[in-house]
Amino acid sequence: MDIFKKCYEFTRADEIKSLGVYPYFRPIEANEGPVVQIEGKRIIMAGSNNYLGLTGHPLVKEAAIKAIEKYGTGCSGSRYLTGTLDLHIELESRLAKFFNTESALLFSTGYQTAQGVIPTLVQRNDYVISDKDNHASIVAGTIMAKGAMGGLVRYKHDDLDDLEKVISKLPEESGKLIVTDGVFSTGGEIVDLIKLNEIAKKYGARVMVDDAHAVGVIGKGGRGTASEFSLEDKIDLTMGTFSKTFASLGGFVVGSERVINYLKHFSSALIFSASPTPASVASALAALDILEREPERVTKLISNAAYMRKNLTERGFNVIDGRTAIVPVIVGDDNLAFKMWKILYDNGVFVNVFISPGVPAGRQMMRTSYMATHEKEHLDEIINAFEIAGKQLGLI
Amino acid sequence: MDIFKKCYEFTRADEIKSLGVYPYFRPIEANEGPVVQIEGKRIIMAGSNNYLGLTGHPLVKEAAIKAIEKYGTGCSGSRYLTGTLDLHIELESRLAKFFNTESALLFSTGYQTAQGVIPTLVQRNDYVISDKDNHASIVAGTIMAKGAMGGLVRYKHDDLDDLEKVISKLPEESGKLIVTDGVFSTGGEIVDLIKLNEIAKKYGARVMVDDAHAVGVIGKGGRGTASEFSLEDKIDLTMGTFSKTFASLGGFVVGSERVINYLKHFSSALIFSASPTPASVASALAALDILEREPERVTKLISNAAYMRKNLTERGFNVIDGRTAIVPVIVGDDNLAFKMWKILYDNGVFVNVFISPGVPAGRQMMRTSYMATHEKEHLDEIINAFEIAGKQLGLI
Repeated sequence: MDIFKKCYEFTRADEIKSLGVYPYFRPIEANEGPVVQIEGKRIIMAGSNNYLGLTGHPLVKEAAIKAIEKYGTGCSGSRYLTGTLDLHIELESRLAKFFNTESALLFSTGYQTAQGVIPTLVQRNDYVISDKDNHASIVAGTIMAKGAMGGLVRYKHDDLDDLEKVISKLPEESGKLIVTDGVFSTGGEIVDLIKLNEIAKKYGARVMVDDAHAVGVIGKGGRGTASEFSLEDKIDLTMGTFSKTFASLGGFVVGSERVINYLKHFSSALIFSASPTPASVASALAALDILEREPERVTKLISNAAYMRKNLTERGFNVIDGRTAIVPVIVGDDNLAFKMWKILYDNGVFVNVFISPGVPAGRQMMRTSYMATHEKEHLDEIINAFEIAGKQLGLI
Repeated sequence: MDIFKKCYEFTRADEIKSLGVYPYFRPIEANEGPVVQIEGKRIIMAGSNNYLGLTGHPLVKEAAIKAIEKYGTGCSGSRYLTGTLDLHIELESRLAKFFNTESALLFSTGYQTAQGVIPTLVQRNDYVISDKDNHASIVAGTIMAKGAMGGLVRYKHDDLDDLEKVISKLPEESGKLIVTDGVFSTGGEIVDLIKLNEIAKKYGARVMVDDAHAVGVIGKGGRGTASEFSLEDKIDLTMGTFSKTFASLGGFVVGSERVINYLKHFSSALIFSASPTPASVASALAALDILEREPERVTKLISNAAYMRKNLTERGFNVIDGRTAIVPVIVGDDNLAFKMWKILYDNGVFVNVFISPGVPAGRQMMRTSYMATHEKEHLDEIINAFEIAGKQLGLI
């Protein structure tokens, strides 16, 4: 059998394209944060993870440019070998301080961070215990651990009674790592970290929180989920990304010195991958400066999302409640989702379409997300486009 | 049992550090390609993958800076959703043309590329067949495929009779993907792609070659392994990286349009990872321009490596023969390797130390690699440092 057979038989994308409602891989021609240009048209972006709007900030751009001038365009080696710059060390030290932990370690992408940690720690006779709705990068890390003979068990999304049921059945003498998103990327729910931490302590498990959608969004001054629940000294590892709040590309994990030291010497995703570029490290440093100096950006972000949540709900949409930067609007059907995306797009608004099986049937959504740099006029344009689309499709 | 126990028990790195010969994570303070600054000292770099020396090229830096000015410092989304720029499409189109294939697809790192392809294609009842010495990123991809219930079999390094033995035992009706490094990253050997391709065709398998260390090094105008063997139309997929010849960070795969289309819609490492930054894409484009315009850089690289191979052999070192940019010098013992590294470093030369179990016992090596921008005076300084170290340690 030809292993490519599945590729020849996959035609769904072609069908969506032929209907003119294909929402993916749309090239952006110019990007000013809340406003982008696609196919020559001005579009309000309501689907970016550029939460604090810093990818276009003059100081962030300047820092990236200076780093290119000084160090060049790439590091051509892994952190382990020839790819460590003084800049990497500086960012690690700043992150450890920001999160009030002993140590930090950078990875080349946020996606690689979970697999840089999970299969490195979860070996034979250990278990990773993972929420079923954790981000795909965590899923990849857990599958890799399983492929390398580690144990993998999963519990029902956001159901900590199920977590306890699952973990209580594992051998007492096995090592255990519970991994959870701090803010879940699809629906924007915040994990109940107090209860999760109690269960972890009861069963001798360590905890890693993925704060990709939490840093810059929740916690004191945007310090994420552990800070939100005043559990900074109880959570063993927090991982995050530079491609959201930090206006860059890369990932990090913070925790105790001994654990970070172990990861530095055994993590395949660290040791065998070229290090983050000088420009990306410098951008993240500059973004961290701004986050520390201007915590009001976090407040603005949250108030923008709250404004959208309130207004879309008042217009009659089925909006998932929450208090992060993510505001999902349920439409409940794949074809309806594609049609709605197209009407929004034609009315100058870009959102992300989540269809089945990415989300369970009935939960198909327009996943909107906001930035600190959205002004009220942008938000009102988005509400207006939603109103047009909602009426046209009979959703409101 | 505490899953962190292994971290507390790992002390080897501390021991090497206390001996003053720890060669890893050394921060570079300034980088001019063949010459870098570490701990305030001028050091000749003989361990970088910056093969054509383009990370500091004025046109590459200028392209990166212009991209930051135009698009900002990051894309804040995956290619699939909000992270595609016209620049990404342009680079994909240029790569497809360069490799004379239908389509190309970018990934955020070279490391992520293998896992972006292998577990996506190798599903239940399929097999990936992998050389035992393939790069760690391929190992990660194959373990992920296994963790997701795909089949994984491996064959002895560079032993195509063993490949045939292994593949002949797999069910005829199963899908099969053979994955091999084009140039193996440790020893620099080139795969016998003619024989491997014959075996693949005989058993109905598809072939993917990882050309991380081959692009810009072998093949017509640096077009890699398939080109080296005039097999461009026979090899199904070629993957590569931007962090070596292309002076950037990211990865790519080239192949037929239908297969690339499938990967675009099912590859987790693509869909759930933020896209390569504007600066990184622009750097890779500018580097590709230079590679196409100045193929003499490839010739210079190869002649530099040949000069080193010849001179180190003549001085009495145990050098693995080859014709790529990698020149491994075997020292055969962990402690000797660390000591040699330190003497070289003290004499102003940086190389990579490969110790056991990264390489088999007896194969511990100083893995040197060269750039097109090394001048004869740099190379002679390296030879001189090797001579000092070799004599001091009784190796020559």
